[in-house]
Amino acid sequence: MITVEDAKHIILENTQNFGIEEIPFLEAAGRVLKEDIVADRDFPPFNRVAMDGIAINHRFFEYGVRDFKIEGIQAAGSPQQTLDNAANCYEVMTGAVLPNNTDTVIRYEDVDINTLMATINIDEITEGQNIHVQGSDKSKDTILIKKNTIISAAEIGVLATVGKAIVKVAKQPKVMIVSTGDELVDVNENPLDHQIRRSNVYTLVSLLNDLKIPAETAHITDEKQILKEKIESYLKEYDVLLFSGAVSKGKFDFLPEVLDELGVKKLFHRVSQRPGKPFWFGTTNNCNVFAFPGNPVSTFVNCLVYFYPWYYKSVAVSSEEKTAILVKDITFKPNLSCFLQVKLTSENGQVYATPIQGNGSGDLASLVEADGFIEFPKTEEVAFKEGSVFPIIKFR
Amino acid sequence: MITVEDAKHIILENTQNFGIEEIPFLEAAGRVLKEDIVADRDFPPFNRVAMDGIAINHRFFEYGVRDFKIEGIQAAGSPQQTLDNAANCYEVMTGAVLPNNTDTVIRYEDVDINTLMATINIDEITEGQNIHVQGSDKSKDTILIKKNTIISAAEIGVLATVGKAIVKVAKQPKVMIVSTGDELVDVNENPLDHQIRRSNVYTLVSLLNDLKIPAETAHITDEKQILKEKIESYLKEYDVLLFSGAVSKGKFDFLPEVLDELGVKKLFHRVSQRPGKPFWFGTTNNCNVFAFPGNPVSTFVNCLVYFYPWYYKSVAVSSEEKTAILVKDITFKPNLSCFLQVKLTSENGQVYATPIQGNGSGDLASLVEADGFIEFPKTEEVAFKEGSVFPIIKFR
Repeated sequence: MITVEDAKHIILENTQNFGIEEIPFLEAAGRVLKEDIVADRDFPPFNRVAMDGIAINHRFFEYGVRDFKIEGIQAAGSPQQTLDNAANCYEVMTGAVLPNNTDTVIRYEDVDINTLMATINIDEITEGQNIHVQGSDKSKDTILIKKNTIISAAEIGVLATVGKAIVKVAKQPKVMIVSTGDELVDVNENPLDHQIRRSNVYTLVSLLNDLKIPAETAHITDEKQILKEKIESYLKEYDVLLFSGAVSKGKFDFLPEVLDELGVKKLFHRVSQRPGKPFWFGTTNNCNVFAFPGNPVSTFVNCLVYFYPWYYKSVAVSSEEKTAILVKDITFKPNLSCFLQVKLTSENGQVYATPIQGNGSGDLASLVEADGFIEFPKTEEVAFKEGSVFPIIKFR
Repeated sequence: MITVEDAKHIILENTQNFGIEEIPFLEAAGRVLKEDIVADRDFPPFNRVAMDGIAINHRFFEYGVRDFKIEGIQAAGSPQQTLDNAANCYEVMTGAVLPNNTDTVIRYEDVDINTLMATINIDEITEGQNIHVQGSDKSKDTILIKKNTIISAAEIGVLATVGKAIVKVAKQPKVMIVSTGDELVDVNENPLDHQIRRSNVYTLVSLLNDLKIPAETAHITDEKQILKEKIESYLKEYDVLLFSGAVSKGKFDFLPEVLDELGVKKLFHRVSQRPGKPFWFGTTNNCNVFAFPGNPVSTFVNCLVYFYPWYYKSVAVSSEEKTAILVKDITFKPNLSCFLQVKLTSENGQVYATPIQGNGSGDLASLVEADGFIEFPKTEEVAFKEGSVFPIIKFR
């Protein structure tokens, strides 16, 4: 049995490179960018009018001139106009190019317009005001978005602006999620008294969808030969296999044995944690196998604690550890790391974690009340004190 | 000009009910549940074996018996067996029904098995141990997930368990996102010197996709008649119109005038905030119109500050205010509410907000470095102090 830290270390030593694919930018939200995005022009690309109003030469205002004859209108989307007489003005619209031979914009609120004459009705004007100067946000060729960024709405906007209609992102792994256990029937079936419905595979599908990873699912009965044949073909076809169940000490927990017979190299089995202790992890040349224990909370927490960081490292995304303040004393006796479901609340810039009174690793329904897990370290201490800070893993 | 608070109040007084639809449960992640989900059976539905090992009658252990003859195996997924001789034991597997006539499970680690005899090798055993008692998580007919919950992986698991293959969720609004401005060309075009590419509509599409709302987009040139005709048809067809641009004081900012002519009731125009001041909001019988100013940061922040809460209230989801601690003094002079892009970091259970040095509301690229916005109240004060706590709105 190894520690959570050692298990994480081994998993992070065994990441994969899924390669790169090109997709339409609008489908790229949530995906991991695999190229630097550079400014194709200055940002903004011209001296851009930032207020609706008039554009003048500031020196005439300094000379005491307040009345400016209007030569024309510079609309957004029109080629740049030129002010002929430097003592006149142009009406200018937000988003337009600043006309040649002008250097200052006065907003309509500070001007009275009479037919063809604009009269400035304020006394203070700064040279160059209300102009969004060419290149002042970013100059051409500056990197706007770094490779390995997770794309959000902000990046979608920048991709559009620089004309990246097609964008390079990390390919997603091909994942097969397999449930085992003869007690399981499908969601649309009516279970007999001794049966329950499959749920873990769907929880895993949903957790992977949160990473934009599509996944397939399968169910295999607890028969060793069938298990072996199916897994043999999955190992060839997929980058990742996620199992739920059949890794404990039961008579029909064939999975570790079968994986061994199929040449999957076991890197560890059993981690000193609760829930999720019987977790098994191994690899082949081309495939990583995460075999999670079958209790719903075990599967759920192991996916967050192990698969998520493995995926993030595989696609070169760095993720920040989050922490929260425990709101009540918790007693936890065994010398194991403990992942406890918590409700997270925000108050006064602080994040508080309230433990959810679950009923062990089988209590799937308790997760509905939780937002994440708090991680208590493996220690001889039996009590974790109210007000102490611990790492958290959020799932909503 | 009204305050941010009044603008929010008016918007939340004008929500819609989009109705309910039924969809496959696995597609429901991120959607808003519109029925209570109740336990169709006890959770667990039988006295469930929670450890691989043997099941005995505890009273024989109390009598001093340590050797138990094995009568058979109770596998997961098999109908319940019965222990014939109460002094014997059954081998039992995790997930199996506890055999009749047994009351306690001892895990394999604490037992030596010799052919047909199991010998318990520990001295302390608690009656009823390692049994997940029928109904102990939840009893039949208990509400497991409340109506109006946003569905996450945890809920997906529960939906599967209770056999909810098809689930009732809030319908999404039909949304059209319209850009205006003759300076705009499409993403795959090469802009002339005085043009830029459309980006705001795609940012909005992405922000709405984060709420699982699909949206259509259109672009209308700055010609009043065309604007009017198109909007007239959109008003009939959509629940929500989102505009970006043409609401300021420019010569070609026809939008407020056109909306008025089409009978859209203006509820406010201009909010005392920066960025995003010229925001216009109005309604018809069947449609809400959010007309955001065209600067990228203005559009972005207004969608988060106004559209998001409007949507959440429309689908009856309550959302919690989050706060963060400002890491440096900020001076903001105008008597306006200020939304400033910030990088959020977590340390020691606290959330810190570091302002991003943006270059005004046109600086789309600055959003790439941010995780959200901090909201400074409208006040006569010019400085917000390091260490103070303010509301935040996260967008990643």
